[in-house]
Amino acid sequence: MNKILILGGGGMVGQKLAKQINEANAIASTKLTLFDRAFTNNTVVAKSVTGNLADPTTATKLAADRPDVIFHLAAIVSGQAETEFNLGWNVNMMAMWHLLNALKVEHEASDYTYRPRLVFTSSIAVFGGPYPEKIDDEFLSAPQTSYGAQKASCELMVNDFSRKGIIDGLSLRLPTICVRPGKANAAASSFFSGIIREPLNGLEAILPVSDTVRHWHASPRAAARFLLHAAQLDTKMLNGRRALNLPGISCTVAEQIEALRHAAGQKAVDLIKAKPDEHIIKMVNGWPRNFLPERAIALGFEAEKSFDEIIEVYIEDDLHH
Amino acid sequence: MNKILILGGGGMVGQKLAKQINEANAIASTKLTLFDRAFTNNTVVAKSVTGNLADPTTATKLAADRPDVIFHLAAIVSGQAETEFNLGWNVNMMAMWHLLNALKVEHEASDYTYRPRLVFTSSIAVFGGPYPEKIDDEFLSAPQTSYGAQKASCELMVNDFSRKGIIDGLSLRLPTICVRPGKANAAASSFFSGIIREPLNGLEAILPVSDTVRHWHASPRAAARFLLHAAQLDTKMLNGRRALNLPGISCTVAEQIEALRHAAGQKAVDLIKAKPDEHIIKMVNGWPRNFLPERAIALGFEAEKSFDEIIEVYIEDDLHH
Repeated sequence: MNKILILGGGGMVGQKLAKQINEANAIASTKLTLFDRAFTNNTVVAKSVTGNLADPTTATKLAADRPDVIFHLAAIVSGQAETEFNLGWNVNMMAMWHLLNALKVEHEASDYTYRPRLVFTSSIAVFGGPYPEKIDDEFLSAPQTSYGAQKASCELMVNDFSRKGIIDGLSLRLPTICVRPGKANAAASSFFSGIIREPLNGLEAILPVSDTVRHWHASPRAAARFLLHAAQLDTKMLNGRRALNLPGISCTVAEQIEALRHAAGQKAVDLIKAKPDEHIIKMVNGWPRNFLPERAIALGFEAEKSFDEIIEVYIEDDLHH
Repeated sequence: MNKILILGGGGMVGQKLAKQINEANAIASTKLTLFDRAFTNNTVVAKSVTGNLADPTTATKLAADRPDVIFHLAAIVSGQAETEFNLGWNVNMMAMWHLLNALKVEHEASDYTYRPRLVFTSSIAVFGGPYPEKIDDEFLSAPQTSYGAQKASCELMVNDFSRKGIIDGLSLRLPTICVRPGKANAAASSFFSGIIREPLNGLEAILPVSDTVRHWHASPRAAARFLLHAAQLDTKMLNGRRALNLPGISCTVAEQIEALRHAAGQKAVDLIKAKPDEHIIKMVNGWPRNFLPERAIALGFEAEKSFDEIIEVYIEDDLHH
């Protein structure tokens, strides 16, 4: 695995992954390239390339370099894909189509020897309710957002291009990443991080939903670890089902808050202000709450063991950095 | 429902559907248009249009007529989609993308009032093994063929464009259609019809698999009825999950042969010659065997009650026609 390309390498998870690759030298003698629309805060030593993935010529150029491993993290986020319908489908679905076709051209030009590992970050948004108490590995993908439908479409393409031997891909349905460092973003899920991050930084945080809301979390460190693990996995073990529900922590907002109390005391908890937001309540109500990710666990994917641990990871990796 | 468009209207099911629309006057005062690459045996009184659905300008032209109901039956069949990878994805997936985008243009040009009913013929090929004994309505779509992946991608698009109010669509996962009239085709499933059709016509038939093979069938008449029912269904009842597993008959090849014996005696059965074909045995081994299609049944979709009835339908509708 000499050449590694991270699409969406300027994003939070992309940067975490790039650092894990560089710092831990997790993959030997690598040539790392980061691709993104723009780099606002790149702190990784690597070649960086900017461009528009929805433009087919971009995929052609990136594929021509024949990366051995491609991490595809680039996406229009859920909320934006909902309001900007064309943009969402073009970037989240059609860009994958262009990429796979560009890789097919290289596969054929190489006399069928070039067959990159493609690790695609899918999402638990491929699921739509009603849900069982725990979503198992055989539960249907019936997304109720454009973002989820686009991710699920990509999973199907990754599977079929892999089955045909053009790539060797897999799709990781990441839990909600928590605690996200930095500022709150426009995602409806932003508060799951905000209610931990802001109080740890001495700031007020808004809680827009009831504390009985249950959700599914993993840390940014775990997300980067999932991706690296996927890059090195023997995909024969996937038996042709190349989309995986990943492990995470299922907990209620009350349990998140309790973990914050353990980590930083009542003073921190007091900074959380309840301010119900009907729009967010309605969206969150349609999200998965818990999983039984037996396949991924058997394949060696490891998340945190508790939400306390997720907070520790944030404190170690991001607080005051 | 004034204007009806059948994409794939020159095909066997398209013709059956068109006849049901015309003869039974199932939908009042209709203007029926059939679209296909070519019409080799059109016996329906309707406007016929030829063209290439994979060409985006075709979708634009068809959408400009603003049909009230669109039946999308056009496809590259399973075997061909497997050998001609680009053609399969272009016709079975990208053509749907072009169509939906063309319909979106009309939706917007009509001040958001134009919102056609789109009935898409998906397939049980969206499923891939290992299977439970009966596939229920919450079983995952994990296709193991390009055809299945393409159909599943279209289901996701139909669902999301419908959720956004651009169309009002649904996807029908048809059972294997049996008894297909006419000549054997190149489909691996062709023998399921052949072992009934050829003996009823006094001809020899080849059985390439063991008679213990179990599969899922419905007649062409039932398929056309499913499509008409779907065109008139209140889609609110789908609760946002617009892909449906349809009812059918699960039976073994031995049970099919027994039904042939009831219908035409031992003389007909003697015309079936066992000739194992490893390629077909392997493919059929990966196919679904039985379903529990509770949602579709509750929504009023009706298949035959027995394989005997499926043979009767062939005798009534197609034998000696």
